[in-house]
Amino acid sequence: MPDPSRRSERSRRAILTAAMELVREVGYRKLTIEAIAARAGVGKQTIYRWWPSKAAVVLDGVLAAVNEDPHDLSLPDTGDVAADLRGVVRAIVAELDDPELSGTTRALTVEMQDDPEFAEMVRERLLGPQLRAIADRLRAAQEAGQLRADVDPAVAVELVIGPLYHRWLLRTAPLTPDYADTVTGLALRALAP
Amino acid sequence: MPDPSRRSERSRRAILTAAMELVREVGYRKLTIEAIAARAGVGKQTIYRWWPSKAAVVLDGVLAAVNEDPHDLSLPDTGDVAADLRGVVRAIVAELDDPELSGTTRALTVEMQDDPEFAEMVRERLLGPQLRAIADRLRAAQEAGQLRADVDPAVAVELVIGPLYHRWLLRTAPLTPDYADTVTGLALRALAP
Repeated sequence: MPDPSRRSERSRRAILTAAMELVREVGYRKLTIEAIAARAGVGKQTIYRWWPSKAAVVLDGVLAAVNEDPHDLSLPDTGDVAADLRGVVRAIVAELDDPELSGTTRALTVEMQDDPEFAEMVRERLLGPQLRAIADRLRAAQEAGQLRADVDPAVAVELVIGPLYHRWLLRTAPLTPDYADTVTGLALRALAP
Repeated sequence: MPDPSRRSERSRRAILTAAMELVREVGYRKLTIEAIAARAGVGKQTIYRWWPSKAAVVLDGVLAAVNEDPHDLSLPDTGDVAADLRGVVRAIVAELDDPELSGTTRALTVEMQDDPEFAEMVRERLLGPQLRAIADRLRAAQEAGQLRADVDPAVAVELVIGPLYHRWLLRTAPLTPDYADTVTGLALRALAP
């Protein structure tokens, strides 16, 4: 006897895979629910039953990709906060500088501006966990006396991520590994005990 | 005899005034070239002769508002770089937190993502001069030995502006005067000689 919940899960995965393939092939702007449905072999109504919009499907596709590798989220703790932070900041810069990944992130950022409910979904499910993972590593360094304890870890994270984000979104200058290290070094100096 | 260049200048100002009034009244998204033309008492073709898009008209309206008060751009130099920077960062936070101004800035940021030529126009004419004004003040403090000299002033600016911008665009937490001061204090610590 076929198991309907397993069939649902299979369709859900097929839809997310199709969405991520298509976003790479045609870009977010040209992506349509119709094309996702056709590629996944499901009806449009199946997609609309589970997701309110194209943006929500792509967000779930991004989340599925991130969650395949949960180590993407929690930072290593080698005991050397400078090295650990430098590593994650370089990884973020590489991701932002990847034209394929970056196009999707840009598109989701634009959607957030137009759709407050979607913005809340992105903050809760993608952005919040990513920022908290870095904040947790900085808090551990505060508790170990390696960073001053009187800075809110969430603010400390913004000090590192904000400059990258500003340069990336406004394209004011190139995002390079050198720039990643410069920003990390400045933030660590601000946070030094 | 009527002076055609003076008449042109009068139409240009009427168009920019109408655009800024309408953007406040109906918001950027609902703003149309038709409505701007009607309010300014000109034909649509007059607008399209001078501007390629609604975004370009609004950018010129914002620039006209900024340039009415050129002191908005260059920072005061009281000799106390901490006080001068704190003042400009508080002003930026107040502007970003103003729902009316902020809506237009958000809309222009979104347009920049979709239109590389427009993005270049914003960087050259609005964003670049604003960032350089802060960089110039920080460079003067470097030359006076008040800040370490081995940080590119443009990077130093991103260290202050980036966190505000990230919090503002992604709405991760409230933008308050306290937050402005916290970020200024952290950046100054990173830049201390």
